[in-house]
Amino acid sequence: ALAAPAVAQSLPNITWQLSSGYPKLLDTIYGTAEVFAESVRELTDGKFDIKVFPDGELVNALDGLDAVQEGKIDIASTASNYFWEKDPAFAFGTGVPFGLNQRMMNAWLYEGGGLDLLNKFYSKFNIIGFPAGNTGAQMGGWFRREINTLDDMQGIKFRIGGFGGEIVRKIGVNPVSLPAERIYGAMENGTVDAAEFVGPYDDDKLGLNRVAKYYYYPGWWEGGVTVMNLINLEKWNALPKSYQAAIRSASALANSVMMARYDTLNPPILRELVQFGTVLRPYSSDIMLACFNAAKETYTELSEDNEDFKALHDSYMSYRGEAYLWFQISEYAQDTFLMLQQRAGRL
Amino acid sequence: ALAAPAVAQSLPNITWQLSSGYPKLLDTIYGTAEVFAESVRELTDGKFDIKVFPDGELVNALDGLDAVQEGKIDIASTASNYFWEKDPAFAFGTGVPFGLNQRMMNAWLYEGGGLDLLNKFYSKFNIIGFPAGNTGAQMGGWFRREINTLDDMQGIKFRIGGFGGEIVRKIGVNPVSLPAERIYGAMENGTVDAAEFVGPYDDDKLGLNRVAKYYYYPGWWEGGVTVMNLINLEKWNALPKSYQAAIRSASALANSVMMARYDTLNPPILRELVQFGTVLRPYSSDIMLACFNAAKETYTELSEDNEDFKALHDSYMSYRGEAYLWFQISEYAQDTFLMLQQRAGRL
Repeated sequence: ALAAPAVAQSLPNITWQLSSGYPKLLDTIYGTAEVFAESVRELTDGKFDIKVFPDGELVNALDGLDAVQEGKIDIASTASNYFWEKDPAFAFGTGVPFGLNQRMMNAWLYEGGGLDLLNKFYSKFNIIGFPAGNTGAQMGGWFRREINTLDDMQGIKFRIGGFGGEIVRKIGVNPVSLPAERIYGAMENGTVDAAEFVGPYDDDKLGLNRVAKYYYYPGWWEGGVTVMNLINLEKWNALPKSYQAAIRSASALANSVMMARYDTLNPPILRELVQFGTVLRPYSSDIMLACFNAAKETYTELSEDNEDFKALHDSYMSYRGEAYLWFQISEYAQDTFLMLQQRAGRL
Repeated sequence: ALAAPAVAQSLPNITWQLSSGYPKLLDTIYGTAEVFAESVRELTDGKFDIKVFPDGELVNALDGLDAVQEGKIDIASTASNYFWEKDPAFAFGTGVPFGLNQRMMNAWLYEGGGLDLLNKFYSKFNIIGFPAGNTGAQMGGWFRREINTLDDMQGIKFRIGGFGGEIVRKIGVNPVSLPAERIYGAMENGTVDAAEFVGPYDDDKLGLNRVAKYYYYPGWWEGGVTVMNLINLEKWNALPKSYQAAIRSASALANSVMMARYDTLNPPILRELVQFGTVLRPYSSDIMLACFNAAKETYTELSEDNEDFKALHDSYMSYRGEAYLWFQISEYAQDTFLMLQQRAGRL
């Protein structure tokens, strides 16, 4: 009678609410929040119970930051860059256009000082964050007609995620903001001419292949998108140390599992899309370069009068320079060789 | 007086011994085992204490499997392919020549059925394994003179990790097996003509740049090396569920942290090596293709009379085909564009 109830006494029962920025339909970017919560339960013998809610059930994705800050919810599992209009420095919690790929982003966050810098910034909003997922390099969007030159981009109404929209505006695109659920309808009725979301698996779930033929790549504005667990800082500070450790390591597990899910689920759907008529097209060099220059210009402008943006930008971009120096040697040579064998049918 | 001792009663005090397959000198591949153990302590309020020992202190790296199997130690944090001579199927716990890169390897293990297949195999040795680190694509080794053609490889005495040695033997190389600590001396006194270990950061610690000028890439036999926590299965089964969860998620955290460390530490050392005279050279296509064909031949031979090898091979290789189909689209286009900007000095 002593040993059994002791378990109940030793750890407090805590129930938290997590709001995902995504609909339940997406077992990738939403589903990984369930993996995170389940891992926390296992680590704490079920004592720390994080309930997971899809976008809109407790709060809407774009209200996630305010809701965590005010303690209405405990965690938002979301894209930090949803909140870039509040402060563009939020973009670095997701990754910025022409930025780090998934592996580099993890390296910057875990060992390159990135997460510490971000949390210094997040603390101003009563928030602490932990990386809890990544989509990898996203696709560049669905177009009804071919886009060969910079001229073809002029005036295009393009559904594109927040911060990327600011960049393409500079090259003449008309960016449109729309939640996932409304993209298909907007493409169908011509409210937008083109739309990007994530990649083959998620885009197929939204039915985007049925309203556009050309599928462009790469999604240079989302080259290694991190999903963050944004947590109310006061509630975090009040947790037992072992529950804090549970959140940290379960977030890391979710971070790996989300990438693994995308990498497992995307290839067969990509193959199927192409079989059923989707045409893959790379963005041309002049479009890529114009966007690259527009991004640089935007970063320079924002760095001028925003210290948080500048601190994060300088750390992230100096990391990028070093990382792409290293990746172009062994990693790239190995991948390139095997891609050539893949194309030659030798794998 | 009731609440405080309750903590002590609720979870058993357990002390385990982990033997790393690597020397303490390597804060990457050895140091991450410390990160793992510390995470387990945090998750369990210090109750589950895993003591970490470097190679040789409890057992030698090559005896790690036997020691875990017999319960002399609880965990070996090591390369599964160290034990390929016992059964070549062990190689798939590390990754095989011309195999998956780091991200693909994680995807195969976590979501592609790879870890379940491996653990089915490991269970025959009274072992369960969890991925706990990755080095990324390794470099292809240090040579005293240039190696331009397949002919130049004939008769070369090359220190190379176990399974890769079998492949290069087929193209005329004379593979030599040596522990990390003895590589420098063997290069210096001419016992070997060439040597590979890991990558810039670790190789520099071993001083290999002081005994050879040419640094080749990629290390096609180790394109995404996983380090495994190999655990005694009976002891695993006897753990409380929450301690099992702690090992699982702390291993996943270590897996990410090791890769992040390598990606952070390699670039500045690579830069320094080149500044001080190291010459980077890609393996020529004829060498790469000959080795690729030799690897395929080896896999076919081993699959013929080893069911475990065949099951793991078929799963791993079909995953590779799909993964390289997908990676050559958005991921590769984004990386390539940014590498070109890096070379043009625009990052």
